[in-house]
Formats: sequence, structure tokens, C-alpha cells
Amino acid sequence: MRTEDIDGFFASASSLDADDYLLLDYSFECSGDPRTAAAHLCSEQSTAQWARVDVDEDYRPRFAAKVLDLEVETVLSETSYVLSPRVSGPVSVCRVRIAHPHANFGPRIPNLLSAVLGEGAYFAPDVPIIKLLDIQFPASFLDAFDGPQFGIEGLRARFGIHDRPFFLGVIKPNIGLAPEPFAEIGYQGWLGGLDIAKDDEMLADPHWSPLAERSALLGAARLKAERESGESKIYLANITDEVDRLIPLHDLAVGNGANAVMVNALPVGLSAVRMLRRHAKVPLFAHFPLIAAFSRLPLYGVHTRVMTKLQRLAGYDAIIMPGFGPRMMTSEDEVSENIAACIEPMGAIKPALPVPGGSDSAATLERVHRKVGSADFGFVPGRGVFGHPMGPRAGAASIRQAWDAIAAGIPVADYASGHPELSAALARFG
Amino acid sequence: MRTEDIDGFFASASSLDADDYLLLDYSFECSGDPRTAAAHLCSEQSTAQWARVDVDEDYRPRFAAKVLDLEVETVLSETSYVLSPRVSGPVSVCRVRIAHPHANFGPRIPNLLSAVLGEGAYFAPDVPIIKLLDIQFPASFLDAFDGPQFGIEGLRARFGIHDRPFFLGVIKPNIGLAPEPFAEIGYQGWLGGLDIAKDDEMLADPHWSPLAERSALLGAARLKAERESGESKIYLANITDEVDRLIPLHDLAVGNGANAVMVNALPVGLSAVRMLRRHAKVPLFAHFPLIAAFSRLPLYGVHTRVMTKLQRLAGYDAIIMPGFGPRMMTSEDEVSENIAACIEPMGAIKPALPVPGGSDSAATLERVHRKVGSADFGFVPGRGVFGHPMGPRAGAASIRQAWDAIAAGIPVADYASGHPELSAALARFG
Repeated sequence: MRTEDIDGFFASASSLDADDYLLLDYSFECSGDPRTAAAHLCSEQSTAQWARVDVDEDYRPRFAAKVLDLEVETVLSETSYVLSPRVSGPVSVCRVRIAHPHANFGPRIPNLLSAVLGEGAYFAPDVPIIKLLDIQFPASFLDAFDGPQFGIEGLRARFGIHDRPFFLGVIKPNIGLAPEPFAEIGYQGWLGGLDIAKDDEMLADPHWSPLAERSALLGAARLKAERESGESKIYLANITDEVDRLIPLHDLAVGNGANAVMVNALPVGLSAVRMLRRHAKVPLFAHFPLIAAFSRLPLYGVHTRVMTKLQRLAGYDAIIMPGFGPRMMTSEDEVSENIAACIEPMGAIKPALPVPGGSDSAATLERVHRKVGSADFGFVPGRGVFGHPMGPRAGAASIRQAWDAIAAGIPVADYASGHPELSAALARFG
Repeated sequence: MRTEDIDGFFASASSLDADDYLLLDYSFECSGDPRTAAAHLCSEQSTAQWARVDVDEDYRPRFAAKVLDLEVETVLSETSYVLSPRVSGPVSVCRVRIAHPHANFGPRIPNLLSAVLGEGAYFAPDVPIIKLLDIQFPASFLDAFDGPQFGIEGLRARFGIHDRPFFLGVIKPNIGLAPEPFAEIGYQGWLGGLDIAKDDEMLADPHWSPLAERSALLGAARLKAERESGESKIYLANITDEVDRLIPLHDLAVGNGANAVMVNALPVGLSAVRMLRRHAKVPLFAHFPLIAAFSRLPLYGVHTRVMTKLQRLAGYDAIIMPGFGPRMMTSEDEVSENIAACIEPMGAIKPALPVPGGSDSAATLERVHRKVGSADFGFVPGRGVFGHPMGPRAGAASIRQAWDAIAAGIPVADYASGHPELSAALARFG
């Protein structure tokens, strides 16, 4: 880009109408002049050629993405991650805030992704390392989205669950167990105190556990558990499937008694979730396959917070996400940022229930509760309930006992002495 | 995992029915025992708890993913990429081939992605760094997919383009130009010799260039260009949008004279593409936003080859991909592997046309042709046509002249002396 062209991709925030722009925060490493690199980032994600040949016109004022802030943090002798082809020579480590005019594409998720995570981000000349750290939407953009149908308060009201976390359990064995024993152990989990018995994210509609049969059995077991326990119970059916089967499977599962459905957000695509949201009669839960493929490295890809915001925008009522603890290889700050992204103000879009998960059990509830800082979360053990040495009913009871201790301000380990289910859970999983 | 449990996740290839398994090649770095780590990879992507408590059963023989080969390549003192939280201590760099039983989920793209790129890959204990390098499908799995409707031979027959590459041009200015002048320069490109004038991947259906208006103008201009040139011409309309608008926009654009449509594969989701494929009346072209977010780093994420195969499986007739040259920050080997993934035998699935792209012009055609090794590719300049100093018609002519030189075995630079369009292109873009 010629030096005189670079200025067209810079602006001050005060000179722009904030309602017309998304705000994008990227970190990047570039091998040339940082100002030129930032201009390229803008050019490639908006108007890459802003005039016809021999026509006196300039599409940049209205259509260009524009650098609002650019900071060079440090200079390295080579990129932080060795690439192929290798990039060496002085490399500037930068942060940039870009204002991107959303009228370039409109309030559509695939077009948003194409603009902010396409060639513009990843193929800007001399910018081989880049991560989209955050995105902010003005009200004019948010207004086009429905967001969660129920949200946290809607979930609480619908199921009568107040002043405590939602207790989920992933029914295990997750893959291989036939519908009848699968429903039976889900039922045991509910009796023990689970709110939500759920399918694993990999268990959908295989021939050895057809959703039709499984959801009918779980739907009936749920009603039985509700009658016996006097509590609302939820069967969260995984309807992850090809896009054109989402609505039929939703109708099938809900007709059979599933009162929430789960869709793996990124494998199915956020746009398909938005479509399902308009049809859904029950709360939608997200699961996170694929997200780590582009979010784990601190300096490359996309921050999970961006995907959490987009999942909320697409209409999920609850977002299962990689949670606390070394098992999920995600920093505690990042988990907290994702929880915040579920609940922070976002125009008229309701808060979604954060469900930070990863090898949880009665032994981890206190830590998760403390990290979240409130009871507005879902807690989602798998083996912590269904691998409990005394069986799933005891496994679920151990979770409720751990919560009883926390709610009463008693150390969980102390409370265990009078509660064999909790005691066994701490011994096995602690 | 207990030592005696690990063996259940290992098998010899000869002991398995190849038709029942996908083959997955991962590279990974692990901080513990590599054999245990590989067993975790299998367990987490299939049956993570393979028996109920106190029930004598084992779901692994039928449902477990199984290690066929495991090689430890070297041992490092810390992971190749610094993570947060940091992983240090001896780290083994490994390659593994895993056989994954596809009946766990069936021939469904979202469920396939959930199994091979979900928790199983990215959250296996002690495996913080991992990349899915390749995937192979048995005939029993492929049979459920349609793949490309036309494929390379179908595209050639439909449009009468033989023994040479398909010449595409991305109409520029890509963002900001109103439909009428946009159609006019597309028309100029066709007259100059383009086969395909296309929308930029970021230009879809914004209010300042509605697809209805744009496609009507381009559709009419295409017919005019066909009459005047005596050649088939193609308007490739970008219909990337929310999933539930893909079929309506396909019908709109095709009704207006678009004779091919483009959908940004990953932003829309491959499953939505598969849905569109069943409806499509014209060839489908893929574009690649988002792919670099998880494929650029040599040791983490997903290799682009996997995504190329999945795009072909989903039904794309042509796949625009990051191409040769430093501009696209992709190694030449990787581009070649993606081209191979478009055309190599894949059951009854037709070959897709590879379209390796990135800042191309008459100056790069010879190199791209040599690298591809045949004329079975699409060549996709943007500014190389629409930023040509003599205008788009001359820009398109410069591409055709470069091909004439190549086909005649004359060095392109020599041929330029009698061809001012080519000469100007080499001077500007060479």
C-alpha cells in the first residue's frame, strides 16, 4: 500500500458514528511497518480496492474498516510461533482496535464471520500471527438478533430452580449404552437430585440409540422422576445433526418429553442455531466441540470470548464451555471472561446461563462456585455422577450434598462425614 | 486411566473391519506417557466411560476409537508453543493413527466434527498440543454423501471450457460499488476473456448492493457478453447468508441469471452446504474465510487438507483455497496437498475443481500452472484484472494472453512484447 493510501484506513473514534461500527480488538505480529500492517488488516477486511481504475472515487470513508488505536508492545527477532514458511527478521507485536462498518454485510452471522475472521484477518500482508481478542456490537446491530428465548431468569422461572446452580449430569456410558439402560440411569440421576440429565455431546441419533426411542424413554422417565421427587426435571436431548434435521429432531425430542435440547454450536454452525432458535419451544444448550481448535493458543486464532458472545447472539439459553481446573487447559481468567460474556449487558439480549465444565464432581463444586462468584451457573459432571462408586443416584446426591454444605457455609469435607454419598465422591474424585 | 484399561484402546489394523472405521492421523505433544495419552485421545473421542458401575460390560470392542500406530518422534523440554497455563517438563512429540468407528454417529458432518475435533482431540488429558493432519473415509461412509453435483468434468462439459484453466475474476472494488457500475466492469471482464466474473467473498446481500438487483444486472450482462464473445460466461454470485436464506437466495440469483453460486464454507457451516447441494441447480463454489484460524500453525489445530476433503464431501464443485506464493502464508506443499485432496480418488465422489488463489495476475499464471501440474484448476485474480492499469477488459485479456503464451510454450515475458495488455500487467503486478 502506498504511504498516502494508509491514512484512509485510520480514524479517530470521535469522528465516527459508533452505531455504524463493530469494534474489533486484535493482537498481531507483523514483519513490516506496524502502521502499514494495520492498514492492510482494515483494507483486506473491507474495501480492498476502493476505486475503479481511472475513476475519481474513494469508498473508504463509508466502507473501510478503520484503525482507532494501534500500539506496538514489543519487537521480536522472529514470530512467537514458528511458521511454515518461516517468518524472521524484526517482528512487531501489536494490539489494534478496528472499527468495522457493519452495513458492509448486515446482521448476518456467516457474513460477520467472513468479514472479521476471513482473509482480512488471516491473510493481511505481513501479518502472519493474529488473534481476534474481542468484539463489541452497537445496539443497531444487536437489535436484529433475538438472543436467548429464556435466558437465566427464564430458565429459573420455567423450572422453579432458584438461588442455586443448575445441576446437570452427562449420562455415561456416553457411547454404546442402549436406550433402555441409558434412560434407567438418567432416571436414577434425577432421583438422586440432578435437575438435568443430558446426552453426551457425541451421542446424537445413531442407529444403536435412535433419538426417537431414547427421547421417548427419557421423556417418560423424566415425568416419573418429577412425580416421585416433586421437583422439575429436565431431559436435555442432543439433537446435533445435519442442519435440515435440526427442526424435525427438535420436534421429535420435544414431542417425546425432552424439555431442553442441545446443539453443538460450531460443528452445526451458529447460523443454523439462529434458525432453530426461531422455531424452538424449549431452551437451547450449546456444547463446545471445535472451539479449542482455534482458541487455545494465546497469540493465534480467536479468543473463546468472541465465540461465547456469538453463541449468545445466536440464541442459546445456556452455554457449556471449557471450565476451571487443569483438565480443560484453559486459564482461569479465560473461563471467567467467558462467564462474563454470558451475563454482561448486551443491548436487549438476555443473559445466557454459563456452564463451565470439565471432569467435575462433588469435589470440584465449591471451587467452581467460588470462581464463578454467584449461583448463576450450571454444573455438569459426567463420571462424577454416573461413575460414582455407589451408582448414579448416589452420585447425584453427592452433588446436592456438596451444595447443601456450601449453602450452609460448612466445609464440604466436614459435611461429608454424615453423608456417605458425598464421602464416597470425595474419596473417588477428590 | 489404569494401566490395564489402556489396552482396550489399542488394536491392530488387521483385527478390524476397515469399512467400519475412519482413519485419523494426528500429531500431538503430551506431557505424560505417550501410550496413556493416545488411549485418552481414543477414550475421550468415543466411549469415555465404557461400563456402568457394578455392571460387567465393556463397550470398547465395538465403540472405542483405537490406536493403530503410535510413534514418539522426539522429546522436548516444553511444548512447541507456549500455552496458558504453561506446560513444561518433558514433552513427547508423537504421531498417532486412530481408527474411529463411524457408526458411533453416522454419516453426518456435524457429528463427525464433534467426534474427531471435539473434546476427544483437544481436551484429552495431558495432550495440550494436537493437530488433525488427515482423515480417510471408508466406502461405507462415503456412500451416504452426494459430493459434487458436477465436478471438474461436469463443469467443463457444462460450460464448454476444455484443455485450459478456468479464468475467474473477483470484481473490484469489492465493497462499496453500486450494482450498475459493478455489473459494467464484470461485463468488461467477460469481454476481455474471463470465464467467471465473481462477487468477492465479503459481498453478499447488503442494502447498498442487494443481491436481487446485482444478480439481475450481472445475469443480463452475462447473456450479452456470451452473445458478443461467442463463449460461455459465468456469473458466480455470492449467496453466503444465514442458513435459512441459502435456498431462497440460490433461487433468486439463479432466476436472475447467475449460473454458479458461492457459499463461504465454514462461516455458513458444511452441513448447510450439504443441504444446499441437494437443492442446487448450478455449480457450488467454496470460499475459505475462517479456515486459517485453525490451520496455519504447523503443530496445532486442523490441517487444511481435512477441510478440503470435507468441502468436497459436502458437495462443492469448486474449492477456492489459499494458494501459492508468499502472500497466502501457506507452504507450497500444503497447497499441493489441498489440490490433491480435490482430485484424488474418494469412492464415487467426483473430483472438485481446485482454485488456489491469492493476489494473482498474468504475472503469476505460469507459476501456478507449473505448481498445479495440469490445467485442471481455476485461476482467480482480483486486482490483477480489475486493477489493471488499462481497465478490466484489458486485465482479463492479459490473463488470456499469458495462457496463450504458456499453451504455446513461449515465455510469458517474451510474449508480452506484442501484447500491450500483458505487458502492462507484468509491469504493474510482476
